[in-house]
Amino acid sequence: MNDVARLAGVSIKTVSRVVNDEPAVHPETADRVLAAIDQLGFRRNLGARNLRRGSTTGTIGLVVEDVGNPFYSELNRAVERIATSFGRHVITGSSEENSERERELTLEFCARRVDGMLMVPAGAQHGYLVPEMRAGTPVVFLDRPPGDIRADTVLVDNLGGTVAAVTHLAKHGHRRIAFIGDRPDIFTAAERLRGYREGCVRAGIRYDERLIVLRTPTRESVIDAVARLLSGRNRATAVIAGNNRVTVHLLRALAHVTPRPALVGFDDFELADLLDPPVTVIAHDVGRLGEAAAELLFARIHGEDSPPRKVVLPVRLIPRGSGEVAV
Amino acid sequence: MNDVARLAGVSIKTVSRVVNDEPAVHPETADRVLAAIDQLGFRRNLGARNLRRGSTTGTIGLVVEDVGNPFYSELNRAVERIATSFGRHVITGSSEENSERERELTLEFCARRVDGMLMVPAGAQHGYLVPEMRAGTPVVFLDRPPGDIRADTVLVDNLGGTVAAVTHLAKHGHRRIAFIGDRPDIFTAAERLRGYREGCVRAGIRYDERLIVLRTPTRESVIDAVARLLSGRNRATAVIAGNNRVTVHLLRALAHVTPRPALVGFDDFELADLLDPPVTVIAHDVGRLGEAAAELLFARIHGEDSPPRKVVLPVRLIPRGSGEVAV
Repeated sequence: MNDVARLAGVSIKTVSRVVNDEPAVHPETADRVLAAIDQLGFRRNLGARNLRRGSTTGTIGLVVEDVGNPFYSELNRAVERIATSFGRHVITGSSEENSERERELTLEFCARRVDGMLMVPAGAQHGYLVPEMRAGTPVVFLDRPPGDIRADTVLVDNLGGTVAAVTHLAKHGHRRIAFIGDRPDIFTAAERLRGYREGCVRAGIRYDERLIVLRTPTRESVIDAVARLLSGRNRATAVIAGNNRVTVHLLRALAHVTPRPALVGFDDFELADLLDPPVTVIAHDVGRLGEAAAELLFARIHGEDSPPRKVVLPVRLIPRGSGEVAV
Repeated sequence: MNDVARLAGVSIKTVSRVVNDEPAVHPETADRVLAAIDQLGFRRNLGARNLRRGSTTGTIGLVVEDVGNPFYSELNRAVERIATSFGRHVITGSSEENSERERELTLEFCARRVDGMLMVPAGAQHGYLVPEMRAGTPVVFLDRPPGDIRADTVLVDNLGGTVAAVTHLAKHGHRRIAFIGDRPDIFTAAERLRGYREGCVRAGIRYDERLIVLRTPTRESVIDAVARLLSGRNRATAVIAGNNRVTVHLLRALAHVTPRPALVGFDDFELADLLDPPVTVIAHDVGRLGEAAAELLFARIHGEDSPPRKVVLPVRLIPRGSGEVAV
């Protein structure tokens, strides 16, 4: 901190005030201190961290969309497993896919001085995290990348997954393949749609946007989508469900539909193999996603200061029956 | 605290030391102070609380068996909903059905000065919580009662649920009804077994312990149980699954068994209605369980000091098909 103080031409006390976000520092002075911190590469530096903290608080924060969704509870369990092995506890919160709530939760966790943050972001703007990261709180994004900052990120191969789904359905003769996904401002939904387009190109299928529905999946929205996509002369003969919530609603909506379209769902889920027909899915290892992100976070907590990393975990198609129905 | 100090014949500083579990107090003196606290009814008193805390820490602790189990993630979500409405966050941990780990987690959460604890206990001994409760940390048990202390408890009607299941199956002509439950030292497993026996008595069915399997449900243990219960001259014609984990493993184990026994599962689960046949369950409102416990906890945090309460929430049988198969 001596170097920062010297470079910025201020006292150590002032540097400490800026790092702690305390009032009573002139904005220009604060900017000078932050610039000096940047210049000296203090980001994630344990010195800054200890100046702020004194010592570890023994907790890490995890913000997801909804702790009640089985996908996130599996993630939570994996994060907890790694945190426990490092003697830490996990404080969790649901953003409810609301960027304002994500910001509130995250800043509150930081104010509680978590040792690090794991985030499945709801929003696309994360500038608010920069002061926290500068002050020494490592942040790792998982399942979705940050919006406008650079930070460690662990993703799954969303694009590759839907390319594989389209290719698989095309191999069984399907040319009218619908895609029902979540809101297009959600990263995974947008990437999976990109993979869908890419898959169509590779299979020589003309992209038809009337076969696309992108909305928050609810019972009603999926029933609506099914009514529209599966009727008329140009109806779809196959459907790709963009995530596990879409798949569950879709299975219910299709229960009494004949002929039943072929179906591939993104995300594996319990009992998929026991349904009639068993559900073909694009599976990824949710536990591995949580573990990889938590391991990276603890490396950062322990001082690892290489440039931000991006890790992409593989997915695989598991054929079970619903995706192997010919036209 | 003046009254406690006077009654115990010690200084206020000593009372504070005892309440804070600080060393350097003679055990006999500490006992005298705790006796005085008891006598004056200081339990859960906000005075003691503030003496210890200064102010709220903004978090409540939740210990469950496994945050990755859909039952507990639904519970977690409900607790979070109430905590958020009171401006609190939830710190969670999985006991892994291990009483030692339950104790460790809980004491660590208390050391982090949570404003209150919600616990699905793994163990049967909770004396270790008495100093925390005396010092002003309210504790509410949910889904299972505490072992050897008195504390607020929110349960579901486990016994009534299996009575209803047996009665329902008997009405469809079944006399050989098996029960596959979790370890008998787990409260809910033991209560549900009691309900099974009681149901047999009411239906005039002779209790046959060869039809009972009580073990930690794993894929293998349930396959073993099925092989034993559903073969031979005296095989069961109906099965009651003791919880959602048993049901899932059982459905997999029964996939290729004919004739299929009638089945009633304790705990509802997603997609139960879409299986073939759809699964009849004893449902209880997991969200309501979490909410009721969290609401009680916040009443205590806000100073409500009536004697410990026991709340039992109702269950209901949802007939869907698997439980309405005649012999």
